[in-house]
Amino acid sequence: MSAPPTRAEHFGALFLQRLIEGEIALAKHIGVVVEAAGDHSLVLRAPLPPNANHQGTAFGGSLYSLAALAGWAWATRYFAVRDIAAYAVIQESNMRFLLPVTGELSAHLKIPTAAEIDKFHKMLERAGRGRIQLRVELRDGAVVAALFEGLFVAAMRP
Amino acid sequence: MSAPPTRAEHFGALFLQRLIEGEIALAKHIGVVVEAAGDHSLVLRAPLPPNANHQGTAFGGSLYSLAALAGWAWATRYFAVRDIAAYAVIQESNMRFLLPVTGELSAHLKIPTAAEIDKFHKMLERAGRGRIQLRVELRDGAVVAALFEGLFVAAMRP
Repeated sequence: MSAPPTRAEHFGALFLQRLIEGEIALAKHIGVVVEAAGDHSLVLRAPLPPNANHQGTAFGGSLYSLAALAGWAWATRYFAVRDIAAYAVIQESNMRFLLPVTGELSAHLKIPTAAEIDKFHKMLERAGRGRIQLRVELRDGAVVAALFEGLFVAAMRP
Repeated sequence: MSAPPTRAEHFGALFLQRLIEGEIALAKHIGVVVEAAGDHSLVLRAPLPPNANHQGTAFGGSLYSLAALAGWAWATRYFAVRDIAAYAVIQESNMRFLLPVTGELSAHLKIPTAAEIDKFHKMLERAGRGRIQLRVELRDGAVVAALFEGLFVAAMRP
């Protein structure tokens, strides 16, 4: 008999899949699939066909959406695991497109450092509002095809 | 009897509507409507419900998609009107979210200056490749809710 899931495991891929589909109307049309959702990895995927552009490669808006969802999902999961009544929104973002994505889209969140997370958490506790910069790699197979940096702001729910 | 349409009028809202729907798979799910497409104005709209996020306001990915489409549509229309066999892709972008969008989404392209357009056109003619920075305001009614700046690269079709 296997051990019961830990709290972090409970808020895994299935939790994020339901959250994203339930709360972001466009996600089902993008075909977002949560591949990994843990303390050390957060990966979203989407098939190419519903996200193809005029060149038969991934539409920039789809890649951006997947990256922004990865960032929002990381913050939302962070609060859920710790039972913190906060929410996060994106405030600013930069995206660089390096190469066209010719197959399945994937967004790999770079997990913030412990120091970054600690600062974010303390700002939220002290001021009711925290900010964190989240970085996401968009990949075509193993190749990095685009880079997203987003500044997310979290606030305590009223 | 009214005058026949000019070439610029021929490549108007209906032309861009068909282009966007035909070439960007996600556009129909976003519900993109081309409201204006001319030499002095380019405006895209989308209804809130298919683009709503967890707060009941517009998802950042939808706003970004609408802005990126406005930029791409401007460049593509520019080439079509002049019968230039070129295409445009986005290379880099910055987006700032100022206020939540609580109703219909709209993207208003700031038409580049004549000098910016002239430089872009000449780079494309001379080097087969041109770059132009395009700015788009995302509005909630009359209020500017987000600002998009995108660097678009155009190249001659092979």
